[in-house]
Amino acid sequence: MLGAMQDWNMRVTHVIDHAAREAPDREIVTRWADGSETRTDWAGIRRDALKMAQALQKLGIKPGDKVASIAMNHSRHLVSWYGVAGMGGVLHTVNPRLFEDQLEYIVNHADDRVVLYDAMFQPIVDKMRDRWPQVEHYICFDSGEQTTAFEDWIGAEDGDFEWVQGDERDPCMICYTSGTTGNPKGVQYEHRSTLMHAMAGLQPSAFNFSAASVMLPVVPMFHAASWGLPYAGAMAGIKFVFSAVNDPAVLHEMMIKEGVTDSAGVPTVWLAHFQYCDKEGIDLPPLRAATIGGSAAPKFMIERLMKNGTRVQHAWGMTETSPIGTVGGPTHDWDHLSFDEKVAKTMKQGRPIFGVELRTVDLDDFTKVLPRDGEASGALQIRGPWIIKRYFKADEDAVTEDGWFNTGDVGILHPDGTLQLTDRTKDVIKSGGEWISSVELENAAVGHPAVAEAACVGMPHPKWDERPVLFVVKKEGTECDADSVVAFLSDKVAKWWLPDAVEFVDDIPHTATGKISKKDLRARFSDYRLED
Amino acid sequence: MLGAMQDWNMRVTHVIDHAAREAPDREIVTRWADGSETRTDWAGIRRDALKMAQALQKLGIKPGDKVASIAMNHSRHLVSWYGVAGMGGVLHTVNPRLFEDQLEYIVNHADDRVVLYDAMFQPIVDKMRDRWPQVEHYICFDSGEQTTAFEDWIGAEDGDFEWVQGDERDPCMICYTSGTTGNPKGVQYEHRSTLMHAMAGLQPSAFNFSAASVMLPVVPMFHAASWGLPYAGAMAGIKFVFSAVNDPAVLHEMMIKEGVTDSAGVPTVWLAHFQYCDKEGIDLPPLRAATIGGSAAPKFMIERLMKNGTRVQHAWGMTETSPIGTVGGPTHDWDHLSFDEKVAKTMKQGRPIFGVELRTVDLDDFTKVLPRDGEASGALQIRGPWIIKRYFKADEDAVTEDGWFNTGDVGILHPDGTLQLTDRTKDVIKSGGEWISSVELENAAVGHPAVAEAACVGMPHPKWDERPVLFVVKKEGTECDADSVVAFLSDKVAKWWLPDAVEFVDDIPHTATGKISKKDLRARFSDYRLED
Ligand SMILES: Nc1ncnc2c1ncn2[C@@H]1O[C@H](COP(=O)(O)O)[C@@H](O)[C@H]1O
Repeated sequence: MLGAMQDWNMRVTHVIDHAAREAPDREIVTRWADGSETRTDWAGIRRDALKMAQALQKLGIKPGDKVASIAMNHSRHLVSWYGVAGMGGVLHTVNPRLFEDQLEYIVNHADDRVVLYDAMFQPIVDKMRDRWPQVEHYICFDSGEQTTAFEDWIGAEDGDFEWVQGDERDPCMICYTSGTTGNPKGVQYEHRSTLMHAMAGLQPSAFNFSAASVMLPVVPMFHAASWGLPYAGAMAGIKFVFSAVNDPAVLHEMMIKEGVTDSAGVPTVWLAHFQYCDKEGIDLPPLRAATIGGSAAPKFMIERLMKNGTRVQHAWGMTETSPIGTVGGPTHDWDHLSFDEKVAKTMKQGRPIFGVELRTVDLDDFTKVLPRDGEASGALQIRGPWIIKRYFKADEDAVTEDGWFNTGDVGILHPDGTLQLTDRTKDVIKSGGEWISSVELENAAVGHPAVAEAACVGMPHPKWDERPVLFVVKKEGTECDADSVVAFLSDKVAKWWLPDAVEFVDDIPHTATGKISKKDLRARFSDYRLED
Repeated sequence: MLGAMQDWNMRVTHVIDHAAREAPDREIVTRWADGSETRTDWAGIRRDALKMAQALQKLGIKPGDKVASIAMNHSRHLVSWYGVAGMGGVLHTVNPRLFEDQLEYIVNHADDRVVLYDAMFQPIVDKMRDRWPQVEHYICFDSGEQTTAFEDWIGAEDGDFEWVQGDERDPCMICYTSGTTGNPKGVQYEHRSTLMHAMAGLQPSAFNFSAASVMLPVVPMFHAASWGLPYAGAMAGIKFVFSAVNDPAVLHEMMIKEGVTDSAGVPTVWLAHFQYCDKEGIDLPPLRAATIGGSAAPKFMIERLMKNGTRVQHAWGMTETSPIGTVGGPTHDWDHLSFDEKVAKTMKQGRPIFGVELRTVDLDDFTKVLPRDGEASGALQIRGPWIIKRYFKADEDAVTEDGWFNTGDVGILHPDGTLQLTDRTKDVIKSGGEWISSVELENAAVGHPAVAEAACVGMPHPKWDERPVLFVVKKEGTECDADSVVAFLSDKVAKWWLPDAVEFVDDIPHTATGKISKKDLRARFSDYRLED
């Protein structure tokens, strides 16, 4: 501990201070749920965050206390990121799509003392109020009818406030995983981990942010800290365009009107945007870059964006990884690749950015590390400064003895570091001692012209232990049968991977973050049996 | 200190581990002084660094011990950056152009135990050996005739080594400032500060490194850690092209042959390259980006590079700032600017990257902070995680009570954060209580067709305290007189700034880093007097 260089605590207040100092009038535009629009800037966000920090102190909130937000993407939500962290508090971004039991569990588990929420989520608050006994204050981001309005609340303060200091490993945010099994688990982001994650996120191989970037993040601010964009964006002094509604017509209009260069979201978001443009007979917005993550980006999506001149940054991560693990930035040979080769590369999940370390281990024996040969598929493990060590209030660490976190994903590592996700450890199907990727079967099946959605699960089999069964939702107005689907798959996957049965269903269950819930699918078909 | 996220010491060994893992076969090319060329890659650099760390341990070198390098840019020098840091040692990069007294002072002051050197610096070693009593080992990077050759030395090891761990605030490198007054001072770069500096350096507004970058750094590895390029480059897995000679013909050939996209150097380097291309009647190399720093980049240089399609990253920093303070990345309105506006912006020194904070204070009263209004010119102060706090072995901190380091530079801060350097505090001229920028006078003077170089210093004046005197070296084969120079300046600076005298000299003294030495100029003209 030398002190040759200056002492500088890695606190996220540095981020907003920097943005307000170096890009004071770079705009933050919000389209609100009621259709109105407001414009502020980085200086304004900081001013309001200072007022909010004051206001929280007046409520008796102390460093380490949790403040919940149930809100869409908008400038006031952004203010609360910095306002809560700035007084030493911890912002708990709640996913409003969670089921009531989950909402009850996480707000109580986090010991939230304040709940900030959008007017559109008043019904949630009304329903949950009695089940959240320790919440002391409700504040509405919009002009609240039943509770204090955010602007009135912070408007009473003068902003004459000094950020509360503390250890750089203090938490500044907590997010709960949607939890495919058991109760949701809380992941705490520390000031230090958040700062390093955001600095890494700036780089050309990740978000590639500069002063000229204009970002409309469709990824919600409650989904893994909006992938860290609100921090990385502030560091580069970018312009942000937020929309409190995810209607593609609104997003499209804002993108054109505000000169948006970058956007980020899960595949569903991009799909909805495509459909909107097709219906209207208009071009996709002229985006410079599109970050896609949360689930695998399908081939046609990548192709269409690339043909639009948009660089596709296919990213992999999870709530437990802050979330950036890998990003598909251009490789060094990029300019020499054909279009098809570029698409093939982009379909994989990209490469780890500095700070992140990946390895795969044998699915049957986690102590056996697999080679990075582009062939061996195994359980994916991750290590690094913004990767979870221990869940909130857990009694033990969530990492192996040598410090690796088990992602629950199954993947292949290529010699050049590229990650190719193939499945979830829970969903991969073990047939006669060999592994079948449920995801690859699904991806192949959705290529069938009559298939709208497909989910594949391993079902008990008397001889093979497990065999794949494909559940299919047909596209409206189309017809097909099991044989046609299997025939379609037969030249796309190994013969022994072909599903033993194809079941047509009206719908496939989803989690609160919009992913296929195989847990619920399995529950629904718990009596399903395959015969020899 | 929560431990919600994983523990991850910010040590520079993470950088080389990352590069060797994620970009193992991305090349490191070296053109040696003897004209030969070698190619290795990031995996090779790491392998050799491990061997070197072992070899150092065998010599009895301990964590915290200093190892000096007197060397140009090449792959073995790069190996030693990581090899020394990897065993806990501190690499002292020595500027071979220092005067003997300075060389004696710094190697002894740093307590260097080992000296690594290029064969071309054998004369230095021969001369200094007796004056460096505590140096125990000499190793020659080339095939040494009189001492162990580097390759033989590390070749005896098997590389089976674990990086030595330690505190993230341990030093990993030490550089001495060339010292315009008194003895040179040692600036220690810590593992942590180096890592943050390099992460910040990756971003689009700074070096803009991605896997596709191919960098030929002309800035020497002994000049402020080569601006952090060897660390930032490893983080992004770029290709490096090194040249152990700075002959423009060689640099040019390497740039074309190896597909170099980026380069970095002081203005003199670029000037030499221009002259070479003009003489040969060939185009400048098709660089994507040129980083220029160390002194102000002149207008014609910026224009010429920009017309060549090269983005000019005009950067300001100093040994004490690791060194990146500001970089002139594109501003958000860049695409809407005319060519001349772009040039004018680029002539300023750019904007602080995240982590760095600047302010200017009144030259007469350092407690008075000046506004960032694009007009007030004052003493420049800096703060941040990679900014010096205390020089090596100093008894007191080099920062103000509120933690700011006085850069010794004079500048203007613009409302958008842009820094415009105008002078050095030691060189700015105080005439009748008002300040005159010596640098602005010099910059204007070199625009005169007959002026090769100009240096302006304040000379004692009976009435005005100080008045500017301009020392001029004429271009070969041209003629001009004092009146012609003053007439030329008269529409370029305020009337009361015009020099009281113009003196023609055969040469202007320079420091070891190639900057004008006003200290020596003043000494040479110590008897100079101006009359009323
Ligand atoms: N690009 C991607 N491709 C495939 N799956 C992904 C991708 N990004 C995230 N996921 C999945 O989403 C999980 C993280 O979910 P969550 O914590 O809710 O963000 C990961 O463990 C993966 O299973």
